[in-house]
Amino acid sequence: MPAYETIATEVSGGVMTITLNRPDRLNTFSNRMTQELIAAFDVADADDAVRAVIVTGAGRAFCAGVDLDDSDAFTAAKVDPKATDPAIWSDPGNRDIGGLLTLRIFQCLKPVIAAVNGPAVGVGATMQLAMDFRLASDTAKFGFVFARRGIVPEASSSWFLPRIVGISQALEWTMTGRVFGAEEALAGRLVRSLHAPDDLLPAARALAEEIAASAAPVSVALTRQMLWRGLGLDHPMAAHQVESWAIAARSASGDAAEGVASFLEKRPARFPDRVSADMPGFFPWWSEPEWA
Amino acid sequence: MPAYETIATEVSGGVMTITLNRPDRLNTFSNRMTQELIAAFDVADADDAVRAVIVTGAGRAFCAGVDLDDSDAFTAAKVDPKATDPAIWSDPGNRDIGGLLTLRIFQCLKPVIAAVNGPAVGVGATMQLAMDFRLASDTAKFGFVFARRGIVPEASSSWFLPRIVGISQALEWTMTGRVFGAEEALAGRLVRSLHAPDDLLPAARALAEEIAASAAPVSVALTRQMLWRGLGLDHPMAAHQVESWAIAARSASGDAAEGVASFLEKRPARFPDRVSADMPGFFPWWSEPEWA
Amino acid sequence: MPAYETIATEVSGGVMTITLNRPDRLNTFSNRMTQELIAAFDVADADDAVRAVIVTGAGRAFCAGVDLDDSDAFTAAKVDPKATDPAIWSDPGNRDIGGLLTLRIFQCLKPVIAAVNGPAVGVGATMQLAMDFRLASDTAKFGFVFARRGIVPEASSSWFLPRIVGISQALEWTMTGRVFGAEEALAGRLVRSLHAPDDLLPAARALAEEIAASAAPVSVALTRQMLWRGLGLDHPMAAHQVESWAIAARSASGDAAEGVASFLEKRPARFPDRVSADMPGFFPWWSEPEWA
Repeated sequence: MPAYETIATEVSGGVMTITLNRPDRLNTFSNRMTQELIAAFDVADADDAVRAVIVTGAGRAFCAGVDLDDSDAFTAAKVDPKATDPAIWSDPGNRDIGGLLTLRIFQCLKPVIAAVNGPAVGVGATMQLAMDFRLASDTAKFGFVFARRGIVPEASSSWFLPRIVGISQALEWTMTGRVFGAEEALAGRLVRSLHAPDDLLPAARALAEEIAASAAPVSVALTRQMLWRGLGLDHPMAAHQVESWAIAARSASGDAAEGVASFLEKRPARFPDRVSADMPGFFPWWSEPEWA
Repeated sequence: MPAYETIATEVSGGVMTITLNRPDRLNTFSNRMTQELIAAFDVADADDAVRAVIVTGAGRAFCAGVDLDDSDAFTAAKVDPKATDPAIWSDPGNRDIGGLLTLRIFQCLKPVIAAVNGPAVGVGATMQLAMDFRLASDTAKFGFVFARRGIVPEASSSWFLPRIVGISQALEWTMTGRVFGAEEALAGRLVRSLHAPDDLLPAARALAEEIAASAAPVSVALTRQMLWRGLGLDHPMAAHQVESWAIAARSASGDAAEGVASFLEKRPARFPDRVSADMPGFFPWWSEPEWA
Repeated sequence: MPAYETIATEVSGGVMTITLNRPDRLNTFSNRMTQELIAAFDVADADDAVRAVIVTGAGRAFCAGVDLDDSDAFTAAKVDPKATDPAIWSDPGNRDIGGLLTLRIFQCLKPVIAAVNGPAVGVGATMQLAMDFRLASDTAKFGFVFARRGIVPEASSSWFLPRIVGISQALEWTMTGRVFGAEEALAGRLVRSLHAPDDLLPAARALAEEIAASAAPVSVALTRQMLWRGLGLDHPMAAHQVESWAIAARSASGDAAEGVASFLEKRPARFPDRVSADMPGFFPWWSEPEWA
């Protein structure tokens, strides 16, 4: 991967900040941006110095969707809508690039915080849904505008959005295609909290640092995957099994000893285990489904 | 199907309004009403002039449940409760008629808005749960009263209600059987918004028209099914696949060209594709489960 | 089972109150407490005089998690974290005891109300999630502190918590490990309602008695299982089938006759059917998954 052209990344104080960085184009999305974001998440997962990730936008927008003037922006092949041969639809060339990104974020081992500094439209809104938390400037706007453009929601948002905001709110935003403000996003539980523009990144960083300062990195990585993947389990027994393995493994770890010792000594913990080297032997406990 | 006896329908401005129309019996539910509602949804889906559906009640009630004096009102056969032979239970004659209705609404290709003008009790409450949005008069009342009558929730409400209001709220309303007012329904997220009685239908119509005026009908039909059926998917990959097909198909459609052109020209879109003729070749992408 | 050592139970007015009863140890959890709680739920399910269950804590805490000084407190074996042999992980000795408890509560046939009188930390917080309702003193505190101790969420909380409070809120509480107050718990929908300390048990009892006074016990038992298990169904058809069986069975029951008669006569119902003897012939309609 050559140097990033569409994003910028910076690591400090345990936090990687990924900035969508085409401010003159309102940080519009493209194939290039997809690949760069995926590469940045790969770096974040591999780097033990990264304890949390913040995603924000340069300039006045978060991400205004795809750039209609950019041939690299479109997220999939075009297929004759009347085609009925399954092989035509299952061609990997049809894969929605927004989904490639959110499926990568879904697998992330670090907490991911969207700091929504301005308009977030189309994939600019849907890419956030695989992130754990959305904090927004009170000047932010959101729009799941797909039906107004003759297309449909993407980036796996048909899976994520109802699980975050409920089915009725998800249907209203996607079937109207309405662009709405930060207050409506907060009331509808799309965003966690609103902030004055200058307070947005500090608030996102405070949340990231709360995790980085207090929680064992391997515990956080396991927890993130346990909860997201738990959404797909049909019975609590399946969660009980993975949790039991994880409790058994983690109870024997240096982290657990340090967790107890630091608690009893009323001091900050210094957890020895690293995500890069110390994930338990049963990890990953799932088989990632293939495009089929 | 002869003329409707228990409902009335009217289409204007792109909206079909279905009125439960036995006001002297508080619009109580029956086998006849079930069949007429299913027929009306069949008409709505087949008629490209219908862009959204509103369901409301004539007179002072929305629907007071089944009419205890009406032998046509009961929703299933009676079976010896102690029967253990699976064949006895799986007899199609046992099928709950409330479920026949909500399973039909689940498959609808148009947005469905409940305009709850008054008391909605029993199946009058549960039939709304497969609709996308519930707007209520501030004089409305709701009651999932089944346990108080010695029976159980029906109309697939054991699936729908927890997904709309959360498991704890769903358990409280169904295990108490309490009749509750519009404010409690709003606080518990059963309804989207409250309105003065005279403002209820205009508000429902405004939401319907927001969709009809702005969104491509085929996009809306696909979106509705993608989101509702996405609730049953265990991993975002499954959503990614359907979305990818749909983006590929819709990007090649006249609707997408018009969506972009109208956006750039800052004018209302006139989408050419029709739900009756222009659903993509992979639609439906699921096999509807059979009664078994 | 000998006499309880770690809990106390009392039945009055149709309600079993289970009190976590090691106030000098802040009602900390242990293997012994697990077994006693499971035994108490077995008694509650078998006793038709018990129409609802309240769980609360003696003294100033609800449950402060495991007792770090108590060798009986730890919830699982310790396993070499690097082990890769599946047989090592699937050893039943690894089973998390918090999960043994919540899986038992999941199967309960009576409504279960947590009355959270004070701090509820670790398994003290997660054990509540399989209960139907959480009412809290405004002095209560909650903490899903696992990641701060180097371990992970347990008691099947990776399944329950996102379904109760949403995935984003669940991730925030479990990845920060933050201890938070009653107001944050209410805003985040973890608890149903807040009460002054002296009003907490009366409020829990009022809710229990609302169910006991109005709803048919067999209907409540079926409803509780229909809704909780409905969370694992991928299509409303599966709910329709169970509901149809249950409506057919219950419509033929003495409870349904009494439900209608009491309604028409505007008097309290006296339902004849008992949970111990009158569950329908198709119950249970599921196969409980095994540890594997």
